[in-house]
Amino acid sequence: MKLLTIPELAEELRKNDNYIMLTHRRPDGDTIGSAAALCGGLRALGKRAAVLENPQFTEKYRPFLDGLTTDCVPENAVLVSVDVASKGIVSFSGIDYVNQVSYVIDHHGLQRDFGELGFVDPSAAACGEIILDLLRQMKAPIDKKIAEALYCAISTDTGCFRYSNVTARTLRAAADCKEYGADIFAINQVMFMTKRLARLKLDAYLTETTQFFADGLVALSVIPETLKEELGITEDDIDDISGFGREIAGVEIAIMLRQVAEGGKISVRTSPNYDASAFCAAVGGGGHKAAAGATIRGGIEEAKKQILRTLEESGVKL
Amino acid sequence: MKLLTIPELAEELRKNDNYIMLTHRRPDGDTIGSAAALCGGLRALGKRAAVLENPQFTEKYRPFLDGLTTDCVPENAVLVSVDVASKGIVSFSGIDYVNQVSYVIDHHGLQRDFGELGFVDPSAAACGEIILDLLRQMKAPIDKKIAEALYCAISTDTGCFRYSNVTARTLRAAADCKEYGADIFAINQVMFMTKRLARLKLDAYLTETTQFFADGLVALSVIPETLKEELGITEDDIDDISGFGREIAGVEIAIMLRQVAEGGKISVRTSPNYDASAFCAAVGGGGHKAAAGATIRGGIEEAKKQILRTLEESGVKL
Repeated sequence: MKLLTIPELAEELRKNDNYIMLTHRRPDGDTIGSAAALCGGLRALGKRAAVLENPQFTEKYRPFLDGLTTDCVPENAVLVSVDVASKGIVSFSGIDYVNQVSYVIDHHGLQRDFGELGFVDPSAAACGEIILDLLRQMKAPIDKKIAEALYCAISTDTGCFRYSNVTARTLRAAADCKEYGADIFAINQVMFMTKRLARLKLDAYLTETTQFFADGLVALSVIPETLKEELGITEDDIDDISGFGREIAGVEIAIMLRQVAEGGKISVRTSPNYDASAFCAAVGGGGHKAAAGATIRGGIEEAKKQILRTLEESGVKL
Repeated sequence: MKLLTIPELAEELRKNDNYIMLTHRRPDGDTIGSAAALCGGLRALGKRAAVLENPQFTEKYRPFLDGLTTDCVPENAVLVSVDVASKGIVSFSGIDYVNQVSYVIDHHGLQRDFGELGFVDPSAAACGEIILDLLRQMKAPIDKKIAEALYCAISTDTGCFRYSNVTARTLRAAADCKEYGADIFAINQVMFMTKRLARLKLDAYLTETTQFFADGLVALSVIPETLKEELGITEDDIDDISGFGREIAGVEIAIMLRQVAEGGKISVRTSPNYDASAFCAAVGGGGHKAAAGATIRGGIEEAKKQILRTLEESGVKL
């Protein structure tokens, strides 16, 4: 993949037509908001553009995609991926097209295994920050709808400006969205200020059942397979559930075990003092330093033992 | 009170010396952060300045006040109140001095019943936004410590940029704090990303016991008098507990009843479709449209009945 500057990418996009935007698997607010904003901006410049439907788009994000999606990729379409760090995580609907992607726009610093040309800026907290710069460079008019898609992207990828990735640029980009007319409060209410009662009941369950080790440094939570159905939990309700333990004051290593048919799915979230990916690598998984995962075959009790043993072997006194 | 412009206020503050900052009762991040930042800025300009101790300062905010507080008000001190909307809510330590306040700096649009000169800007989401403008106008050098006090003020008064009071100016002020060196992530972690386990247990209790009326439009929660002690809850843990019900999707009228020795303390939080102050006025209390309160003598069951009757009388079908 050849890397371009923002002016070069803007020039490329102004030159072509007939765009299809690809999003990533288990789509979040950043891939959806970025795709929607870029699509809206290209249309505002008179281009044909659409976001490829993703079978995993959830209800929460549908308003940002309204009128922008398509089920088919026309011949000679120019494919643009947004927030897709590698071809293995493109939407299931995009798998057949991933090797034809012309432009990769992303903020992940991972290996690039697809795409002809790209703009990648790991200093951006959200891909949405890049799209905002790009739309301005293209002189695309930014209306309320585009501004709201951008705000969705930027706010959700930063936990409403709480995470360590937030920079002055992030906050200024959000300020610009507000000035372009985004109803940021309405978006905040849906994304950050309310939970469904079912999710609160899951939180209550986890509060009552989470086990603590090493004087509260380690939290180990288990979600039994049947609980999701019992409480009426949807994927939208728990897209951030792996972080539950880290929200408890004093916890630096949060382990979430989700019982699934084939065994246990482990998510580990750590403070900067620990390495989640090392713990998970030891049980056959992987990820980043602060967030990693693994799948363990066998029962949940066995999974518990394995992960706790791994912690002890790495020097954590349980 | 005579109103000044920011340049006029800056000129006044540059002219005088020996400042004491007053904060409000039940102090929050905005009154504390604003007082600390102004104090730091005045000292950076070579002035004597201190924040008057407030017996209600809590542990969470102590780091911002480190080295800045005093227990005594020197003769001929120039008193400045920050974020204090009326003399009735000045800190208990400030009651004796409230009629000697020279400068009132605030963002509340309420009646002014004290202070000689003032700058009041209700369009500011936090008093901290005004202090930032003022320090710049005074050409006070803004270091990391001042920037962190300002970020504390701005972020806490906006629920980390989630509330309806957030403007582009708010987000840009936060961006500036970051650029002045504030470790905004460290502050976010303490203020917005973690709760003590005791507080989570209270949330779990409320999730399991909250009663719903009118198809989930109304949530009625009760905190028994003994529960706080049982769970080891501090005031820092529950400074935002009145909003609990409003965090449940669909709830537009959230009623929190706290059992106290003399009866029940009611807090009501409403969406823009309802008027919390009208509900509370009907039971002898008052407040704002979105947030109001009342104290009811007698048992908690009686308090429940009274507030539900008030809702029904106002037309809410329970």
